[in-house]
Amino acid sequence: MKHLLIIGGSDAGISAALRAREVDPSVDVSVIVADRYPNYSICGLPFFLSGEIADWHDLAHRKAADIAREGINLLLEHTAQEIDPAGKTVTVVDARGESRHVPYDKLVIGTGAVPARPPIEGLDLPGVYLMRTMTDGLTIHARLETDRPESAVIVGAGYIGLEMADALARRGLDVTVVEYFPSVLTTVDASLGGLVEEELKRHGLEVATSVAVQAIAQQGEKLAVTGSGGFRTEADLVLVATGVRPEATLAASAGVETGRWGAIRVNQAMETNVPDVHAAGDCVETWHHLLEQYVYLPLGSTAHKQGRVAGENALGGQAAYAGTLGTQAVKVFDLVIARTGLRDKEAVDASLDPLTVEIETWDHKVYYPGAHKMRVRITGDRETGRLLGAQLIGHRQAEISKRVDVFATALFHNMAIDTLNDVDLSYTPPLSSPWDPVQMAAQAWVRRQ
Amino acid sequence: MKHLLIIGGSDAGISAALRAREVDPSVDVSVIVADRYPNYSICGLPFFLSGEIADWHDLAHRKAADIAREGINLLLEHTAQEIDPAGKTVTVVDARGESRHVPYDKLVIGTGAVPARPPIEGLDLPGVYLMRTMTDGLTIHARLETDRPESAVIVGAGYIGLEMADALARRGLDVTVVEYFPSVLTTVDASLGGLVEEELKRHGLEVATSVAVQAIAQQGEKLAVTGSGGFRTEADLVLVATGVRPEATLAASAGVETGRWGAIRVNQAMETNVPDVHAAGDCVETWHHLLEQYVYLPLGSTAHKQGRVAGENALGGQAAYAGTLGTQAVKVFDLVIARTGLRDKEAVDASLDPLTVEIETWDHKVYYPGAHKMRVRITGDRETGRLLGAQLIGHRQAEISKRVDVFATALFHNMAIDTLNDVDLSYTPPLSSPWDPVQMAAQAWVRRQ
Repeated sequence: MKHLLIIGGSDAGISAALRAREVDPSVDVSVIVADRYPNYSICGLPFFLSGEIADWHDLAHRKAADIAREGINLLLEHTAQEIDPAGKTVTVVDARGESRHVPYDKLVIGTGAVPARPPIEGLDLPGVYLMRTMTDGLTIHARLETDRPESAVIVGAGYIGLEMADALARRGLDVTVVEYFPSVLTTVDASLGGLVEEELKRHGLEVATSVAVQAIAQQGEKLAVTGSGGFRTEADLVLVATGVRPEATLAASAGVETGRWGAIRVNQAMETNVPDVHAAGDCVETWHHLLEQYVYLPLGSTAHKQGRVAGENALGGQAAYAGTLGTQAVKVFDLVIARTGLRDKEAVDASLDPLTVEIETWDHKVYYPGAHKMRVRITGDRETGRLLGAQLIGHRQAEISKRVDVFATALFHNMAIDTLNDVDLSYTPPLSSPWDPVQMAAQAWVRRQ
Repeated sequence: MKHLLIIGGSDAGISAALRAREVDPSVDVSVIVADRYPNYSICGLPFFLSGEIADWHDLAHRKAADIAREGINLLLEHTAQEIDPAGKTVTVVDARGESRHVPYDKLVIGTGAVPARPPIEGLDLPGVYLMRTMTDGLTIHARLETDRPESAVIVGAGYIGLEMADALARRGLDVTVVEYFPSVLTTVDASLGGLVEEELKRHGLEVATSVAVQAIAQQGEKLAVTGSGGFRTEADLVLVATGVRPEATLAASAGVETGRWGAIRVNQAMETNVPDVHAAGDCVETWHHLLEQYVYLPLGSTAHKQGRVAGENALGGQAAYAGTLGTQAVKVFDLVIARTGLRDKEAVDASLDPLTVEIETWDHKVYYPGAHKMRVRITGDRETGRLLGAQLIGHRQAEISKRVDVFATALFHNMAIDTLNDVDLSYTPPLSSPWDPVQMAAQAWVRRQ
């Protein structure tokens, strides 16, 4: 019987395992999991730390028992130490420190990512956290519960930084968010980032932008955070959330080729350069459907898709990962911010000639109670009229995230912006308008083209 | 200067007028409006009658002054009596009964629809209403305000019937809904209709299905409604909402060809058989993008699209109406029900070989508060794997209506169901899952294929 071995028990690894068993219920599948938390939704950690989720066990996409029931063998608290592509074995060490060789016919690497360590002094001080794993989350939770810190500094105002800012403020901490760039959430344009900053301030948070944090130092019982332009603040804890980098050391030492972000090079079949070794998830370079090149864009939804392809192809399938569209969504307090495709600057960098138009409108007919203003920024190619991307912001009940998915589905088909007006989108006054905001934005763009 | 004349001041007519002025700001545009309510959202009437909207003036998509500001000449309370295609004039009668001829170079007919009059005795009794126009809505409102009726029977459990059932129950009336077919909301399958029926009952309404209402009769101060199978009930008022039929009498008498529903025949350029006469909205046959044939499916969102095409083409444009996908959404109490494309039976009728699979899942990660169960029924072609349609039901905050729009956008591109799994849809735990419910349904379908 064919033995499929998977390194990594998070989104990519478990998706590969599930897909393999779905394609061939007779295949022998084992997953090496470094900790005791297979298939946990680490995306949910901020909501556990905020107190919105009472029990961290609920963060499991599936319980270990459910995975076992699918016929998948979990090697929990096993660390993969070495891959021998010639002998087709992986050396693992278990919790007791005992080492052994696990053979494979096909291997899927899903080792994920680790937090980036920015050039800041004092990152290793007690009270400074770089959150990534369930263990990291539980460590922070223990600190919050035992010491009851009253203030926090978040370094980095990306997705995780903002979700954690929301979470800690919700717990009652005084929160200061510090961002290197001139606006928060730089995955969207500054006009939308400004609205996010307003939302943070409306909830009592301090926000400092254009600040390069240089050092964290113990100052009595507090941590002092200092940065460019004379920035200085103190807090009980500091969370550094300045992005992640791929964890590809193990793969690289086995001769698996990595690219310029240090991520594993794969093709759209999720094959590496090493025979019988696939890779997927936050440890790999990701094909971009629009840019038609590889990028590094680690996201849980992408890891699921790539893992599914890797699992199918490890069993001889012909699946192909179609590529990311750069779709992302985040909720910060009552706002949802979502994007898909290319922003203006990203399109320019790709040698396109973009035009971006922003509109403000209501999520549904304003006469019906509960209408919320929302903004849509739509980017298209001036020459061809083709849709390149969209960014939306609005209330969490304004169906922002699935409106961005309408744009994503359009991008998947390389649609022209004007053609969006031809699509029979749903309308009922409590939820939309006869021309959905997606189409209002399309019409505004066409008028400006 | 070219004179564009439009008959009808609702969605299709005003959309045509606005588009014409947008394409050529020098064109002379007049709109003949039978009542004093141009560009009103009659889709909003149930929410006015429910009390959710305090002032009916708010139902205007645009105020008359806004329309005038766009350079559009409104002939309010003017009735079009006759079209002379040879002389290129329309005879109108104004509120004082004075008649005149209005010349045109191009004519757009947007005369809309009128309520169907089912074969029920007593439709003309006082207290029996067939709601369609603003005037109808204001009449019912006056009755509700002055007589304070305590009970109502709604004949017909389609969109309008259910919205009105919700509205009158919200006002405190005892409401009985009577439907001819075995389930309510027959625009979706019975398994979803059953959930809508439960929602109605949960809010204290009576629901009677498989009842053909035969007569309404005065019974003291009440109206007695009787029907097949010994059905009998009494109420203070009766609302008959059994659909609409196209209002094409005026057009037909001028030689404009109509089809088998009595609707005006148009091509995708929204041209009729009569030179220089376009038509759009609820009075025309509508091209179906998937069936590739004409249907009668009057909807505000469609009227807007067709009106826009007619307005552009009346000025010499080359626009084409791409066709309906059969997308519809409605909110009933806390539920939203939406559909797009073909249902199983509709696909069979179109000589396809469909498979329909229904799943129940959560709208977002269940660990995050406020998750709601939702159902997705997905229909595809067994042979080709092509998506044919989808029906969704769930809580009003479960982004049901824009999820159906993801399916609609996929249908527009004749997408294969399995390919839906390749689309980079947005994910954040408070709003979705790594595989969106749209994709979970797609995967369930592929497993069953």
